[in-house]
Amino acid sequence: MSIQYILEIAGTCAFAISGALAVKDKDNPDWFSASFTAFVSSIGGGTVRDLLLGSYPLVWISDITILYAIMVGIVLTFIFYKKLIRLRRTLFLFDTFGIALFTIVGTEKALSLGVRPEIAAIMGVFSAVMGGVIRDTMTNEIPIVYQKEVYATACLAGAVSYLVLDYVGTERNTAFILAAAVIILLRILAVRLKWRVPTFFR
Amino acid sequence: MSIQYILEIAGTCAFAISGALAVKDKDNPDWFSASFTAFVSSIGGGTVRDLLLGSYPLVWISDITILYAIMVGIVLTFIFYKKLIRLRRTLFLFDTFGIALFTIVGTEKALSLGVRPEIAAIMGVFSAVMGGVIRDTMTNEIPIVYQKEVYATACLAGAVSYLVLDYVGTERNTAFILAAAVIILLRILAVRLKWRVPTFFR
Amino acid sequence: MSIQYILEIAGTCAFAISGALAVKDKDNPDWFSASFTAFVSSIGGGTVRDLLLGSYPLVWISDITILYAIMVGIVLTFIFYKKLIRLRRTLFLFDTFGIALFTIVGTEKALSLGVRPEIAAIMGVFSAVMGGVIRDTMTNEIPIVYQKEVYATACLAGAVSYLVLDYVGTERNTAFILAAAVIILLRILAVRLKWRVPTFFR
Repeated sequence: MSIQYILEIAGTCAFAISGALAVKDKDNPDWFSASFTAFVSSIGGGTVRDLLLGSYPLVWISDITILYAIMVGIVLTFIFYKKLIRLRRTLFLFDTFGIALFTIVGTEKALSLGVRPEIAAIMGVFSAVMGGVIRDTMTNEIPIVYQKEVYATACLAGAVSYLVLDYVGTERNTAFILAAAVIILLRILAVRLKWRVPTFFR
Repeated sequence: MSIQYILEIAGTCAFAISGALAVKDKDNPDWFSASFTAFVSSIGGGTVRDLLLGSYPLVWISDITILYAIMVGIVLTFIFYKKLIRLRRTLFLFDTFGIALFTIVGTEKALSLGVRPEIAAIMGVFSAVMGGVIRDTMTNEIPIVYQKEVYATACLAGAVSYLVLDYVGTERNTAFILAAAVIILLRILAVRLKWRVPTFFR
Repeated sequence: MSIQYILEIAGTCAFAISGALAVKDKDNPDWFSASFTAFVSSIGGGTVRDLLLGSYPLVWISDITILYAIMVGIVLTFIFYKKLIRLRRTLFLFDTFGIALFTIVGTEKALSLGVRPEIAAIMGVFSAVMGGVIRDTMTNEIPIVYQKEVYATACLAGAVSYLVLDYVGTERNTAFILAAAVIILLRILAVRLKWRVPTFFR
């Protein structure tokens, strides 16, 4: 098992936790709602990417570990949700690591399937954010990509960084770590310094 | 034509009726809204399942009978909607038979495509409920999986029952009928006895 | 480059403009929101069609010109949005040309992949309207297909016209132009004369 695989499983588990927590203040926060939301949040991004690329079988269908990682996330949320809510800052870090990882993994996968770099960057961003978009759309929230935070934009910056580093011949693991760091730093700085994406309509 | 096929066509027609009725109290209940909603409700679940499994051609694209069953449902709703609304209990039974059938058919189809039983159970539930989820998301309702009723949970119980019966070697038709009965009974009992899925956040 | 291809690229650009403008009165009309919405609006319809038909690679993945047409649309909106909003009538015409074109192109593509005409008509309508449906669902608006205007119904009429003309042996370009004209005329007349699709529940 590579370090990257372990991180991906951990990232899936973290996405499941944030998904399950998302139904907390909903009308009907039962076991099914929480589990369904956790599941869709976790697999949504990668699924959208693979459907668009026609890459079958989907990762979570061929690798059952992902489903069990999600279940672990659900059970952890059930047991520790009071602590988890207090650990907002830790959760934020987990989520940030998760989107960084999923962006670069998604970009890389798209590239490996032979698409152009511009498309690979879109696929990277979609891998990271579409799970959240589907979750928010289904729970009648304003999707995360429409909120103030520098969220998807950080992913896009990371994906482009990876592509540039790859293009100039940077060794793959270095490029991976640097590009992920771009996302993590941008996101942390954005929240700390209240950065906003520039408004479109001046 | 097998009995199962006839039931599937009848189930599709019933889903189309409940889909068309869903726009009744909307702002703009015109022919297109009603037909579009009927169509999406009927084919949504199976389509999500087949897209996720990469199983082409989609059932309703290769078998035109399904489209005509939906049209029959739309026309029946147009003619008899006042009666249908009064027949709430009959419609509930039809819908319950429909989700029971679609759950087991979906589970079985996924299994036949070689996925693991855990994934097949998810596909069974998705076949039954995703049409309704898409319908509710598009019409800005709270999706059915987020409502109080024991709905998707009954489907999950039925899918798991089918997988267990299949695993212990039960004859296929028997397993099919027993598992469908689990869903139907659970759903009827849940509504009668006001059962609720346990809350996730105690 | 055929005239049709140039028109398709122009149509994509027009869809991107109307997508970017759609976030104008939203809570958070930043560059990412506008670009994401423009992108999803532009490629949504064709993507839904191609996913349902299993037609890979998706058009915008294999032809990068589409992505650049969308970017041009976004930049034009950024620079000229005040003028564009005043040009409401021109935009309406562009959008009408766009849906007419996409309906017939979608119908034709589905036919060429060997599906039945009834299914091809559905694919034509989906090509034209699903981008807007996804955009509206994500931005928590009532999807365009549920609004009063004769929108998707005009597309359906055009798709059916094309299929009839094709069936009776009309030369392809003639059928294309006539069917597109049906959509454009129906839509303009509907808006001018305040036509409505008949109500479903009398």
